[in-house]
Amino acid sequence: MFNLGNFLTLSTFGESHGSTYGGIITNFPAGLEVDFSEVQYQLDRRKPGQSKIVTQRKESDTVNFLSGIFEGKTTGTPIGFTIENENQKSKDYGHLAEAYRPSHADFTYDQKYRHRDYRGGGKSSARETVNWVVAGSLAKQLLPEKVKINAYVSSVGEIFCEKPYQDLDFSKIDSNDVRCPDEETAAKMIARIKEIKKEGNTIGGTITCVIKNLPVGIGEPVFGKLQAELAKAMLNINACKGFEYGSGFCGAKMTGKDHNDLFNEDFSTKTNLSGGIQGGISNGMDVYFRVAFKPVATILQPQQSIDHEGNSVILEGKGRHDPCVLPRAVPIVENLAAFVLADLFSINKLRKI
Amino acid sequence: MFNLGNFLTLSTFGESHGSTYGGIITNFPAGLEVDFSEVQYQLDRRKPGQSKIVTQRKESDTVNFLSGIFEGKTTGTPIGFTIENENQKSKDYGHLAEAYRPSHADFTYDQKYRHRDYRGGGKSSARETVNWVVAGSLAKQLLPEKVKINAYVSSVGEIFCEKPYQDLDFSKIDSNDVRCPDEETAAKMIARIKEIKKEGNTIGGTITCVIKNLPVGIGEPVFGKLQAELAKAMLNINACKGFEYGSGFCGAKMTGKDHNDLFNEDFSTKTNLSGGIQGGISNGMDVYFRVAFKPVATILQPQQSIDHEGNSVILEGKGRHDPCVLPRAVPIVENLAAFVLADLFSINKLRKI
Amino acid sequence: MFNLGNFLTLSTFGESHGSTYGGIITNFPAGLEVDFSEVQYQLDRRKPGQSKIVTQRKESDTVNFLSGIFEGKTTGTPIGFTIENENQKSKDYGHLAEAYRPSHADFTYDQKYRHRDYRGGGKSSARETVNWVVAGSLAKQLLPEKVKINAYVSSVGEIFCEKPYQDLDFSKIDSNDVRCPDEETAAKMIARIKEIKKEGNTIGGTITCVIKNLPVGIGEPVFGKLQAELAKAMLNINACKGFEYGSGFCGAKMTGKDHNDLFNEDFSTKTNLSGGIQGGISNGMDVYFRVAFKPVATILQPQQSIDHEGNSVILEGKGRHDPCVLPRAVPIVENLAAFVLADLFSINKLRKI
Amino acid sequence: MFNLGNFLTLSTFGESHGSTYGGIITNFPAGLEVDFSEVQYQLDRRKPGQSKIVTQRKESDTVNFLSGIFEGKTTGTPIGFTIENENQKSKDYGHLAEAYRPSHADFTYDQKYRHRDYRGGGKSSARETVNWVVAGSLAKQLLPEKVKINAYVSSVGEIFCEKPYQDLDFSKIDSNDVRCPDEETAAKMIARIKEIKKEGNTIGGTITCVIKNLPVGIGEPVFGKLQAELAKAMLNINACKGFEYGSGFCGAKMTGKDHNDLFNEDFSTKTNLSGGIQGGISNGMDVYFRVAFKPVATILQPQQSIDHEGNSVILEGKGRHDPCVLPRAVPIVENLAAFVLADLFSINKLRKI
Repeated sequence: MFNLGNFLTLSTFGESHGSTYGGIITNFPAGLEVDFSEVQYQLDRRKPGQSKIVTQRKESDTVNFLSGIFEGKTTGTPIGFTIENENQKSKDYGHLAEAYRPSHADFTYDQKYRHRDYRGGGKSSARETVNWVVAGSLAKQLLPEKVKINAYVSSVGEIFCEKPYQDLDFSKIDSNDVRCPDEETAAKMIARIKEIKKEGNTIGGTITCVIKNLPVGIGEPVFGKLQAELAKAMLNINACKGFEYGSGFCGAKMTGKDHNDLFNEDFSTKTNLSGGIQGGISNGMDVYFRVAFKPVATILQPQQSIDHEGNSVILEGKGRHDPCVLPRAVPIVENLAAFVLADLFSINKLRKI
Repeated sequence: MFNLGNFLTLSTFGESHGSTYGGIITNFPAGLEVDFSEVQYQLDRRKPGQSKIVTQRKESDTVNFLSGIFEGKTTGTPIGFTIENENQKSKDYGHLAEAYRPSHADFTYDQKYRHRDYRGGGKSSARETVNWVVAGSLAKQLLPEKVKINAYVSSVGEIFCEKPYQDLDFSKIDSNDVRCPDEETAAKMIARIKEIKKEGNTIGGTITCVIKNLPVGIGEPVFGKLQAELAKAMLNINACKGFEYGSGFCGAKMTGKDHNDLFNEDFSTKTNLSGGIQGGISNGMDVYFRVAFKPVATILQPQQSIDHEGNSVILEGKGRHDPCVLPRAVPIVENLAAFVLADLFSINKLRKI
Repeated sequence: MFNLGNFLTLSTFGESHGSTYGGIITNFPAGLEVDFSEVQYQLDRRKPGQSKIVTQRKESDTVNFLSGIFEGKTTGTPIGFTIENENQKSKDYGHLAEAYRPSHADFTYDQKYRHRDYRGGGKSSARETVNWVVAGSLAKQLLPEKVKINAYVSSVGEIFCEKPYQDLDFSKIDSNDVRCPDEETAAKMIARIKEIKKEGNTIGGTITCVIKNLPVGIGEPVFGKLQAELAKAMLNINACKGFEYGSGFCGAKMTGKDHNDLFNEDFSTKTNLSGGIQGGISNGMDVYFRVAFKPVATILQPQQSIDHEGNSVILEGKGRHDPCVLPRAVPIVENLAAFVLADLFSINKLRKI
Repeated sequence: MFNLGNFLTLSTFGESHGSTYGGIITNFPAGLEVDFSEVQYQLDRRKPGQSKIVTQRKESDTVNFLSGIFEGKTTGTPIGFTIENENQKSKDYGHLAEAYRPSHADFTYDQKYRHRDYRGGGKSSARETVNWVVAGSLAKQLLPEKVKINAYVSSVGEIFCEKPYQDLDFSKIDSNDVRCPDEETAAKMIARIKEIKKEGNTIGGTITCVIKNLPVGIGEPVFGKLQAELAKAMLNINACKGFEYGSGFCGAKMTGKDHNDLFNEDFSTKTNLSGGIQGGISNGMDVYFRVAFKPVATILQPQQSIDHEGNSVILEGKGRHDPCVLPRAVPIVENLAAFVLADLFSINKLRKI
């Protein structure tokens, strides 16, 4: 319950200012030669301090695999792993023991649990996603090599990448700090984030993710539809506010005649407003979806707030925070998607006798 | 696995042209005096043939409770139920045994399972949602009475209900056939659907759902965030293409300073761009979300398609189909949301010693 | 939660005097040509009234498959089924609304739920096992044909079948009413049960189950050990008091030198005190286990008891009860074991890349 | 899947010669003041080297809690923990890379996974139970204080503690090395184990566990019967061969008239052959069960065996092994039972509205 995945599952632990994050991946098959450098590469894409437009905190984010891998290959038994928190400074957060930051989870955790680790947001910190990147980057290694998952920043605030994804060169995603493969748009986005950062403000945006060469048949017909599993995973990312796939909210404006994807004689479709999924099951076309992220709640400006007794206080974010989470969310989206796919892939192997 | 819910769960079965739909609800507590008329009322809101802008098929959609209820009260043991299919006419669908309808699941099911019930879409039919309405309308009876869940049609095609939900009178939702509480907009929507129906076409739209008076603390911090559980449920509805809550995709354009919801001294917030959820947990404000539905794929016009060998065929939808699913989707959204909440409510009772 | 099985699962409903029993089997693969006569055959072996030494109640115990099977073959989607209760006579049980029968679940249900269906034991009735036989007899069809599961009555009261299972002819199990393949012992058992029945008393016994030709590799290393899954299933049978496999409780008296099963050069073992399982995983040798059943609690003699207020009452079982459940428990044990194996079989397919 | 527990769950990892064991406990409620010394006390009761009749390996078995506990109290979020392996010497086990030890899991793991950590049995090592003791000793702190769980060694080989548990003083369980509270029997058991040890042999035995003051209502009616959950947990212990509760296998010899537990007017029963459980639910009487353990497979004598190609080899156990696991299994049985109870306790809180 409350794991990631259905058969291939990830169970996690860790709090912002605890000593360690970590997780257990169960039902990972035996015999995979693990590409550890890929895992670290994905962690590096997510880690703080990698560019000027993200938080300047430093974490090496090195993963320790504690079980389930022997002589470089998976053994089929649970994969335990940890990532040390190197940079926790609890004293930074003493002032938050009793104050509720606006649009943070301080108040809801306090009400739900009555006892919480308030340091750095405790359990509600997005540092949790470091676990997901470990698990997702391993899970991706279970997918057929031809399956390619690429996410990129498709908007920052009001700046949108107007080109359809088909016109973008995904090999350029990591060529700039904001992870938008359209250089011109990327430059505008970066400039906007720098501006916002200077103001001590933050900004939201969207990420588009495209999965190519997914075989037909992935996803389950009723409560495990591919789009529902992806949506659930994405909406669990800390700042996520929305998910749409294929034609998405635009499709809701259309008529059936315009929206239907007619077949070619090779079972591909002429259009792909369906987003590569019919009846919850992949149809062999590109699966693509878009995820909305709100602006980070911690701003480096004074804000009116209250403490746990309802008394008025003034809060001002201190320290090293992200002005925009989008660049670091790209590997989170990709690796989460990989985990979802690997889980459904496993299950699909059992669908026919 | 692949049930609805985590602790309170619904497991279902049924195909479009099988004899019976049904389900089992587990972990429903003992002692609830069941309001059966509420269950039937919700089924009636969903059933075909209720107005001129929905399918004219006839189904009485009467539920039979087979266990778990004794002398009108739940016993705490599994609640089994069935709904008979009264109106299946298999011969209507003989022509679909070998043809793949555009933007339907015929092709993906055939590839995934190699053997499928093709009649009326078989397992992929939205008739499955009849099970969800039964379960949701029971689950809703577990929630505190003050919790109010109201969904309404907020757009049909390009016609949007421009008023914010706060300005609408939810008691008027069922006062017109399209289930939009703003009479003027409703009239336009109905006219548009009639027009579309006359063309043998179909049209999409969006539903907005508002949950009022939800206590603080509902939802789980990591893989069971309230928004993620709602998104998963909604994206499992057959034509759903997107989900957003609170500020949603619009929030992605904003800055933190504008987006943060400042506290009042009574722990409510001055604004509610968060959509009543912080860190995955309800904060006592209104929870609201929006769901996008694509236009129905079956249109009463000839369409080019292929059969299972890739040969070109002409298909033309026959019979009684919905020109627009939105009006009938309103009770589905509401009752699904109720089930999600009742599940998380149960679990929340175990969060503190 | 609280289903039978881990991946292949059975969820059930039904009460002794409700209208219907039934269940949903999920994750059953597509493409199996169902042998319906085998299902009915197993139901007939379990049903009441089949011989003079079991209850004389009459139930046809016919299963209705409502979904998941099309044109005789499974479709990979949930299999819903029901079995009507034909013979419920609620008035027989009016006297039990307020009395607690000794060694029945009346008291515990009342305390746990405060509201229960008291008729015929309600949910606690062993009639529930009819669901398991349906599911198990289907699941068995997923196993390799060479896998043979045979259970037999190995003791009734103090009468034991002294021969080791290797010396028995399993084809004779059903050749007599008590289902012990050793004719001489069977005759003694039957005589004993008749005697007991005449007294209005009941008697316990044990069932031995032997699984032959199970491939190596079935079972999971930590919380899903093959023996643990079998034990869990068996201990859920209503009158079951114990489970042992391989050397069992006798093995606890032995030394390692005597207990170890030495290998032959073909990886079989010279002895099989292990009962075909090492580290929770089948090793290719016979898996065998023994299940203890207490005597049926309902006796046709007056017994002192109490009502729900603690007042003394005299109860006397009426109607048609089993003097000994063992003969009817044989197909329950076999089909439950089949379900457990089919579940672990599925999962084992995903253990290697 | 394949966790311990249903709602309160334990997921684990670790191999005999990996660096670390550990686990994640989910759905543990917030607000428990953790008694860490109790956890360590239980680990000390299980750890190697504590007396002359158990293995002389040395492990400090210190647990590190990494999350879910803040300022000494649980926070309601996942509790991650690790225990370092201090004493792994991989070179000791090089000779086992290719040989299959009799009655060990070497062969079955090799067949199931094709790639395994062979050092010290890898995943199949009983060192895994260290995780269970951590989780169980925490879970026990969730139970009402009056609930008392006591296990003791009731037989070693042919030496049985003949007294019924009611005549034993449980406070003496830990007063001797073998953990049998009857001093006279304990002395015989210890002498027998020393003798066996001197021979380089090993010996089996049984453990009896008694749970006192368990409230009425614990356990679930169908697939989660209290006895089934206990049996599953116990049969997952590495050397366990059998489980019986209440009258157990002896009850199978009895008649209903003798076996039925008649009520007293206070709802207690005059006898307790039921073992404190009716219909899978605790009835307020003592719950007691007995667990059989086979003799340890590793003996310090030469044994004929084979390697992975089927070639004959001679193996001789080396190093520091338990001549009898029973004394160290006592805390494993107790703490596992505590976990099972705490899980069912939680769930029972949700059974009535």
